[in-house]
Amino acid sequence: MTRTVYYTATTLDGYLADPDDSLDWLLRQPQDEAEPQAQPDDPQADNSQADNPQADDPQAQDAAPSRKDPGDYEEFIAGVGALVMGSTTYEWVLRHESGIWPYRLPTWVMTHRELPRPVNATADDDLGIRFAQGGVAEVHAEMLAAAEADSDADAEGKDVWVVGGGDLAGQFAEAGLLDEVITSIAPVTLGAGRPLLPRRLDLELIDTGRNGAFITARFRVVGRLLEDREAADAP
Amino acid sequence: MTRTVYYTATTLDGYLADPDDSLDWLLRQPQDEAEPQAQPDDPQADNSQADNPQADDPQAQDAAPSRKDPGDYEEFIAGVGALVMGSTTYEWVLRHESGIWPYRLPTWVMTHRELPRPVNATADDDLGIRFAQGGVAEVHAEMLAAAEADSDADAEGKDVWVVGGGDLAGQFAEAGLLDEVITSIAPVTLGAGRPLLPRRLDLELIDTGRNGAFITARFRVVGRLLEDREAADAP
Repeated sequence: MTRTVYYTATTLDGYLADPDDSLDWLLRQPQDEAEPQAQPDDPQADNSQADNPQADDPQAQDAAPSRKDPGDYEEFIAGVGALVMGSTTYEWVLRHESGIWPYRLPTWVMTHRELPRPVNATADDDLGIRFAQGGVAEVHAEMLAAAEADSDADAEGKDVWVVGGGDLAGQFAEAGLLDEVITSIAPVTLGAGRPLLPRRLDLELIDTGRNGAFITARFRVVGRLLEDREAADAP
Repeated sequence: MTRTVYYTATTLDGYLADPDDSLDWLLRQPQDEAEPQAQPDDPQADNSQADNPQADDPQAQDAAPSRKDPGDYEEFIAGVGALVMGSTTYEWVLRHESGIWPYRLPTWVMTHRELPRPVNATADDDLGIRFAQGGVAEVHAEMLAAAEADSDADAEGKDVWVVGGGDLAGQFAEAGLLDEVITSIAPVTLGAGRPLLPRRLDLELIDTGRNGAFITARFRVVGRLLEDREAADAP
């Protein structure tokens, strides 16, 4: 089933970026090096698999040590079929990538402003970017359709990635459309900046681990804070 | 060596309490049940130890599974020799405990206001509470002396617990007097409230684990944020 996931890094005190939208504090944090993975077109990998009598034994593969990092980016992005972000996040990505759009997935940018196009977009190829002004429910339906289309015939639908910022993730949560939060918590406090998720919400911790300097964690979004639901239900 | 430790719970988005100082969202979170521990004066515990041939084998005890929770309260408080807190935290404790002071350790309350005394304080017994108006460095020296005195002759000094709030912990960090942050992160976002640690700081993740609904983590305080140190050093 297609999940809608807010995947982001944050400081320990819940900021996505400092008041000037700087991520310098984030980009210098060490991460674990990815384990070397055999590429499908790597002949050596094919040979070693053929030499390994356990290669076709699913139980032997299950017993392999897991990376135990619920925030693993490669694993996450491989399951994503559509992106949505706010205008500040879009502009940050362009600035950070020298104007070149780095994604190859259909992307909705929520904005009421006129925004620059990436320098690698052409008249024939908009790189899958749609500028959207509607509400999150309308955009979400379009994203789900795109994410479900980007799947093998017999596979389950791909996921929707809410890239940020925090208020956009909050709008999805408020509309009951956010399934999970996956976050990497950097060992930094900023005291001020762009808030992670400026809403009163209950989550449920599914899994937590560590990657280099970061705590990583996956949460299910339960819904509005229990105290607020109870206050609303009170006679 | 005596460490000065800010030990606290926080929401995922870095709040100690909501804007009304409520901790309802915190107090309802499930924690792992403490493992049953043999009491020194429990005769059954003595029997079971006598029956266990490995009881005196230090290697067997080392091999026992650890609780793997850097936020474990019992373990933490056993090493604490002095407390310091702000007036809001002090008043919250009294309110939450029906006016009865729950600690039996020397406690400094930083305040410029006249505060109520606990109902269990008497003319002869102030329960170890000192109301202090000086700066953190002055109070810290007094606390270190108390924490070092509260140790066995051949043991290292006990620790100082900065209970809260966030700004007080920030004052200790700013003065270079805060060694560690130990925090339990609740699966809740509040979007507003009392901030965890309203300063720009670099930490270092020492250990992380899980306790019930919480991520638990221990950090070393490195100091001011690298970007701010570099900006200050620039010609």
